[in-house]
Amino acid sequence: MGEALGVAVLGAGHMGADHVRRLDRVVSGARVAAVADPDADRARAAGGDLPGCTLHTDALAALDAPGVEAVLIASPAEAHEAALLGCFERGLPVLCEKPLAPDARGALRLAEAEAASGGRLARVGFMRRYDPEYQALKELLDGGKLGRPLMLHCTHRNVSSPPHFTSEMLIGSSVSHEIDAARWLLGEEIDAVTVLRPRSTAHAPQGLRDPQFVVMETSGGVLVDVEIYVNSGFGYQVRCEAVCEGGSARIGEDHAMVVHSAAGAGQEIAQDYLTRFAEAYDTEVRDWVAAVRAGGPADGPSVWDGYVASVVAEAGIASLNSGARVPVRLAPKPGIYA
Amino acid sequence: MGEALGVAVLGAGHMGADHVRRLDRVVSGARVAAVADPDADRARAAGGDLPGCTLHTDALAALDAPGVEAVLIASPAEAHEAALLGCFERGLPVLCEKPLAPDARGALRLAEAEAASGGRLARVGFMRRYDPEYQALKELLDGGKLGRPLMLHCTHRNVSSPPHFTSEMLIGSSVSHEIDAARWLLGEEIDAVTVLRPRSTAHAPQGLRDPQFVVMETSGGVLVDVEIYVNSGFGYQVRCEAVCEGGSARIGEDHAMVVHSAAGAGQEIAQDYLTRFAEAYDTEVRDWVAAVRAGGPADGPSVWDGYVASVVAEAGIASLNSGARVPVRLAPKPGIYA
Amino acid sequence: MGEALGVAVLGAGHMGADHVRRLDRVVSGARVAAVADPDADRARAAGGDLPGCTLHTDALAALDAPGVEAVLIASPAEAHEAALLGCFERGLPVLCEKPLAPDARGALRLAEAEAASGGRLARVGFMRRYDPEYQALKELLDGGKLGRPLMLHCTHRNVSSPPHFTSEMLIGSSVSHEIDAARWLLGEEIDAVTVLRPRSTAHAPQGLRDPQFVVMETSGGVLVDVEIYVNSGFGYQVRCEAVCEGGSARIGEDHAMVVHSAAGAGQEIAQDYLTRFAEAYDTEVRDWVAAVRAGGPADGPSVWDGYVASVVAEAGIASLNSGARVPVRLAPKPGIYA
Amino acid sequence: MGEALGVAVLGAGHMGADHVRRLDRVVSGARVAAVADPDADRARAAGGDLPGCTLHTDALAALDAPGVEAVLIASPAEAHEAALLGCFERGLPVLCEKPLAPDARGALRLAEAEAASGGRLARVGFMRRYDPEYQALKELLDGGKLGRPLMLHCTHRNVSSPPHFTSEMLIGSSVSHEIDAARWLLGEEIDAVTVLRPRSTAHAPQGLRDPQFVVMETSGGVLVDVEIYVNSGFGYQVRCEAVCEGGSARIGEDHAMVVHSAAGAGQEIAQDYLTRFAEAYDTEVRDWVAAVRAGGPADGPSVWDGYVASVVAEAGIASLNSGARVPVRLAPKPGIYA
Repeated sequence: MGEALGVAVLGAGHMGADHVRRLDRVVSGARVAAVADPDADRARAAGGDLPGCTLHTDALAALDAPGVEAVLIASPAEAHEAALLGCFERGLPVLCEKPLAPDARGALRLAEAEAASGGRLARVGFMRRYDPEYQALKELLDGGKLGRPLMLHCTHRNVSSPPHFTSEMLIGSSVSHEIDAARWLLGEEIDAVTVLRPRSTAHAPQGLRDPQFVVMETSGGVLVDVEIYVNSGFGYQVRCEAVCEGGSARIGEDHAMVVHSAAGAGQEIAQDYLTRFAEAYDTEVRDWVAAVRAGGPADGPSVWDGYVASVVAEAGIASLNSGARVPVRLAPKPGIYA
Repeated sequence: MGEALGVAVLGAGHMGADHVRRLDRVVSGARVAAVADPDADRARAAGGDLPGCTLHTDALAALDAPGVEAVLIASPAEAHEAALLGCFERGLPVLCEKPLAPDARGALRLAEAEAASGGRLARVGFMRRYDPEYQALKELLDGGKLGRPLMLHCTHRNVSSPPHFTSEMLIGSSVSHEIDAARWLLGEEIDAVTVLRPRSTAHAPQGLRDPQFVVMETSGGVLVDVEIYVNSGFGYQVRCEAVCEGGSARIGEDHAMVVHSAAGAGQEIAQDYLTRFAEAYDTEVRDWVAAVRAGGPADGPSVWDGYVASVVAEAGIASLNSGARVPVRLAPKPGIYA
Repeated sequence: MGEALGVAVLGAGHMGADHVRRLDRVVSGARVAAVADPDADRARAAGGDLPGCTLHTDALAALDAPGVEAVLIASPAEAHEAALLGCFERGLPVLCEKPLAPDARGALRLAEAEAASGGRLARVGFMRRYDPEYQALKELLDGGKLGRPLMLHCTHRNVSSPPHFTSEMLIGSSVSHEIDAARWLLGEEIDAVTVLRPRSTAHAPQGLRDPQFVVMETSGGVLVDVEIYVNSGFGYQVRCEAVCEGGSARIGEDHAMVVHSAAGAGQEIAQDYLTRFAEAYDTEVRDWVAAVRAGGPADGPSVWDGYVASVVAEAGIASLNSGARVPVRLAPKPGIYA
Repeated sequence: MGEALGVAVLGAGHMGADHVRRLDRVVSGARVAAVADPDADRARAAGGDLPGCTLHTDALAALDAPGVEAVLIASPAEAHEAALLGCFERGLPVLCEKPLAPDARGALRLAEAEAASGGRLARVGFMRRYDPEYQALKELLDGGKLGRPLMLHCTHRNVSSPPHFTSEMLIGSSVSHEIDAARWLLGEEIDAVTVLRPRSTAHAPQGLRDPQFVVMETSGGVLVDVEIYVNSGFGYQVRCEAVCEGGSARIGEDHAMVVHSAAGAGQEIAQDYLTRFAEAYDTEVRDWVAAVRAGGPADGPSVWDGYVASVVAEAGIASLNSGARVPVRLAPKPGIYA
């Protein structure tokens, strides 16, 4: 396939450093050409040992570093807009971690800017689309063997929430994965969101509404319900059942090794998303590197998908606060996303 | 334990005839003393061969037949009130199939009549309380090992609906099982019901709203959601997952024999409730016969439980028709049900 | 069905007392007419409160007690022969717990005695034939959908062995269930047995060979392997996988309620055979009572089946002691067992 | 990590071509520097488009091609010895597909040659050691939580056997995976093998002994049994249950997506080893490339492991033909494998 693709990684925190490792050691055909982080120590820790890799505290400078042919953005959401606009100006292919932007308004500006640049350059990191189980479910639904989908029942549980996690972030940060996955699995838009509030677990920090139960209605009449429960105490669990006219299909059931001992019959539960979706992250980046090297226009989850996820999440947050059903209203879709 | 208990069975249709068989062949300590059905042929087919069993077309006459010490009502809902009042007048212990009455108003009259009779005589046939898996779940929740419950996710699927099944009957006939099971599992009342309407399956008869998605809120803030889908096409499936502060527990997963063949790995799915809950029906009647013979006051699911199920179902039907959340309002509870 | 069948229960130990309870409270159409045990206190504890039930220290006296129409033998194996011969002389239908006799020679005497009595009167208590999962497996194999069976893989585990359990009893007492189940499932005789001896668990009493691995070859060339492990420490587990020309089928997988908590995902494991096979015992006795009342000749597991199980077990014990493959040799089969 | 490792791939058949693709597109840090196959067209199809990759019909010439720093051997077993000796002479690190050699004698010559070369250079492709489930099982056993292992029950099934597959190849080609996995999981040698022969499936080609049941005894007294069934008709299924003093653990149970439809509840079964062990192959090669680049002596499955697998398989084939238990005798182990 020729020379390895030179990638600049923006942001060298937990996720950014993991992507540096992935590009260097796991994904073939790529090399890390630049690492940028406002904290020079973090940039050095992530990329200091890599031959031919320059270090930067300024993200835009990294875009112009020698050998940079593509960009992976793993900085905080607030920094995404400037970085993406920098990529669009330079015509650089880019993979941007979710969320695309801190709010829907910012996401829309990015969609319009990409459209103005003349074509698609960016992918957004909705990595569930690269998980083998989600892909098997989509293939089954697309094949039509089970008839039209009528409902999606989703479960999304974490062991515990990080400090400063707010009730709104259960929607904006966690459920945003289900928002994108539902749109992708069904090929339909979401028209309205209602957030129901069961009593909160005693294990949630004071004031945190956890769990929540999110009900979404699609343009085609499919009902999507999501249990989001971030202080479940027992594991990272992501399940999805598609109920169709001709049957149902479930993914995310626990499997792997079954142990019997005096404690009963049991299976280990994954404890975090980097374990559960390790393969999906690898596939996502590998697929992106291969696509960029092949030279076609960007495909996969788009800036528009990132924008829609923001709009739906904002409707969900409005419903969380009001208790009412909130309709979803989208801006007109630029032609490049047709 | 002495002589077998003489039971009059009212109603000799599908369910009544099955109860006659059960009392005669499966449950020890009981005998069928009388069978009543307006259709004399049906009564004869069910009880004609049983020694010492008299046949009747009038239900009240059966209550007065020789040897009748207790009554099992399996006639249509419209006939329950007269039969139960006849039992209350005569002081006869009675097990009445669900629904207790065609509407909440009639159910309330029965609760008041039983209260006026001075004590509990009746049980209502919510047989899930006798299913080993439901009992294991209740024992787990009561034991407190998983902490307080926060949500119940329920699934209730049939292969296909009988003719003349209406959209309202998905709530009033099918979900009434989950209404009682939720109250019993949680020990809490239901305060409000919202019925959501996903698009209907093409396999439902014209005009039938199937599936539906019912969301109930309990007095303690637990959220109970129920997928009811009566034309699923593939089996009879009753699942319940209790999500608690300290973990979750699921029952109704498919199990039994696992077969691998060229068709894939598979398991048989039960096709109807008489298969799935066969043991629960046996246990329900066996437990009732033993309790009556032991001579104490009636316990188990009460006329009041039957009344509450009716009220909640009527709220659900109102929500189905209006699309809105409908609060549940109960009459004052007579002292005998405290 | 007329009057209840009067049953004499011989032996009022753990199993006998459980059968008294079953006949009195669970199985319809039967009553306990007599209880016999050399220990008068045990007889009284089991049957003292039952109306119309006489108590005996002499088993044969119980056979002649008023109202006795059939006999259930739950006394120690050493007492079976005299009791069964008493039943054969009196023409009394009898259900005898396994093992039929302490050794194959005694079992053969019983088969010859029953044959001399002119017809079948006895059933032997191989209760797995009445377990719903075993029945489903047999139905599947008989239906031919999976083609001819080639192998059976069996697992038989207990939490711990009772005191005085010997290495020979792993074969003679435990594996005898698999011996009968294999013959019944396959419809073939067992031609040879080899017992392999893995290293013993540190949790077994000194000198006990536990686990053992038993390999049996049938007349049709099917290989049956059995892991018997009576000090497994974690549960009562009985599994069977039939491997066929067109697929495989497994029963005895753990199922029921699935719990997720900080301890992981888990399921409860049954702790003893009275839990795992509770329904099978009920069905076995119910089926026997119904068959006796129906008045035909005895069917179900026969004295001959009890004899064959003894012969195969003795071959297994010989192999356990010699380490060699031991062929199985059966006496000519009396005509009544054809 | 510096420049990519230049690898010569010997053999461009099904497996060799797959390794070329893996080194080029999946594994980071490696590039294909040479491809050799006696059939020039196959070499060209596999490596013709790769920049900097030379094509050869002579394997030894490929070892001397520009940029070759390591070798992956995927040629037929008959060609392994010459290729490995070539690598030893040149001091080239090498990953050799299994079986190491056509017979144990040839494998021993290779172990002695590698020992004479002064240190370990080769790994053998027992890829199950890189499967996440096998690794989890080994970690559990090594951790000691379940106590000492007593038995391993293994299942190894294919949909159908390729043409010219012989009864001996069920042992030498298929069970050799379980031979290595058992030694690796248990850390013990195999002392004896007995091959039992159930009746053959009608779906096996005329004369093929399929299935077979292989019983191995380890130096520590663990019993390892393997069902090998290469014409099962339904899927590729590799299971392993370790039965220990304190419990049991199973891997290879079917999992992934669960589908319910009118056909019943079901799961897809993998159809071949490239699907089931896709991740293991990737990890095996990735791990090897990283280890070679790190520059230490070779570790992982050794030439000695390949030799032992050959010896045990030959004992198994002797047992298959004689019906008797065959002891395993190993040559003295060279010091470099200690």
